[in-house]
Amino acid sequence: MSTTKHPSPGRLLLVPAPLDFGCEPQGPLQHTLPEATLQAAANLRHWVCENAKTTRALLKRLSATHPLPCPLQEMQIQELPRQVHKKGDHVTGDRSGLFDAKPLLQAALLGHDIGLVSEAGMPAVADPGSSVVRAAHDLSLTVVPLVGPVSLLLALAGSGLNGQDFAFVGYIPTDATERSKRLRELEQRALQTGQSQLFIETPYRNSALLQALLQSLKPSTRLVCASGLTLPQQSIRSATVQQWKQRSWQLDNATPVVFALGA
Amino acid sequence: MSTTKHPSPGRLLLVPAPLDFGCEPQGPLQHTLPEATLQAAANLRHWVCENAKTTRALLKRLSATHPLPCPLQEMQIQELPRQVHKKGDHVTGDRSGLFDAKPLLQAALLGHDIGLVSEAGMPAVADPGSSVVRAAHDLSLTVVPLVGPVSLLLALAGSGLNGQDFAFVGYIPTDATERSKRLRELEQRALQTGQSQLFIETPYRNSALLQALLQSLKPSTRLVCASGLTLPQQSIRSATVQQWKQRSWQLDNATPVVFALGA
Repeated sequence: MSTTKHPSPGRLLLVPAPLDFGCEPQGPLQHTLPEATLQAAANLRHWVCENAKTTRALLKRLSATHPLPCPLQEMQIQELPRQVHKKGDHVTGDRSGLFDAKPLLQAALLGHDIGLVSEAGMPAVADPGSSVVRAAHDLSLTVVPLVGPVSLLLALAGSGLNGQDFAFVGYIPTDATERSKRLRELEQRALQTGQSQLFIETPYRNSALLQALLQSLKPSTRLVCASGLTLPQQSIRSATVQQWKQRSWQLDNATPVVFALGA
Repeated sequence: MSTTKHPSPGRLLLVPAPLDFGCEPQGPLQHTLPEATLQAAANLRHWVCENAKTTRALLKRLSATHPLPCPLQEMQIQELPRQVHKKGDHVTGDRSGLFDAKPLLQAALLGHDIGLVSEAGMPAVADPGSSVVRAAHDLSLTVVPLVGPVSLLLALAGSGLNGQDFAFVGYIPTDATERSKRLRELEQRALQTGQSQLFIETPYRNSALLQALLQSLKPSTRLVCASGLTLPQQSIRSATVQQWKQRSWQLDNATPVVFALGA
């Protein structure tokens, strides 16, 4: 009598990437990734990612210290579609807007572990990927987030702001009037409730956002800019808006910055 | 002519701890801490912490792989006062409530790096310590957050909830009526704005909080419980309230859980 063996399903591993995406020179992966994360990543043959080219570059860096299970060209590397990059996995307040990522997880149903990776930091946090995690849960796959750098949390820890009640609200509008309105709204929430407010901007708008913050916020509000986290040029500045103005602190438009404000 | 040398001030290093506090057996630190974090921690002689005893236990684990600069009894290990443990560093909406931690940073003014460490995870995030970070900024010390495990972010990444807009709101009231009210308020915020809501509870109330969640929330709301993160028994369950009830999923009252809800 023959029996058909059903392989147990693979898991979805959330693989953090270093924060030096696009930077030169890049340090060793060991700087920000624990050995267990590196080992787990080095066992994978199946990937879902934002960008296949940067995923191959990351795997090449990994292979310098950890042998990979097969040549890069034999790996299955699937990209998230453009719509998810641009608009995010979720449409605010509308669950029907969630991208269905189940087709990207077929390899797991055949028994293979799959890695989810983004350009920098933790996938699905301030980055695309949560639809893939959602699909994994809907398929009853085990989801395993691996430890690595998360710029938002490094910024919050280093801010001196309230870390027991905080929100990350994504990007700030680029239109000057809307931006100013949004910043005052976040300030009001932070001052009234004590909840620290974190947000990000594409680096080439760092300086413009800083100017808008200094113009829009009250002198006594505390503003934090965490720049180049985990990189050699890392700098975290935390002071009141009044102090920022007195010290004439600036931001360059080339380094990633996490912004935060609070009481 | 004699000159007095002023040493350059030391830095404040935020040293993450593994998430296996109070667990048996404890795995190697390399599992969740990058080599650069271990090396930086192993150079320190001055510490500010929640609890001196657990800090010494952590340093003893560290010394198994990384030689320390001096015997444990020669290290300066200062505890945060009880009031900060109990009430947090910040009093909501009232800056005058912030604990003044400058006296704990005297060694940095004399040129020594100081490590800030909590019982588990990242200091000053869902844990005491932000007043020490604030004091470091006020003294113009360089603040360096090191990479390590942060349960909140591992939970969020693994949740399948919106990771591009989220809030962590701390603990939930223990009084049944207030708890129910608070949970419905968080649900309403999540559903109306798309902002995922994360919170925690002391482990012995896990089961009670889960029951309150299942009773208070709408059937279609997604509830996530991330239990024992980074530990061998790690489990992340993400499903609608209706599915939670159908599957009769339970939580034990011994393992730390991060709770999250969203659309």
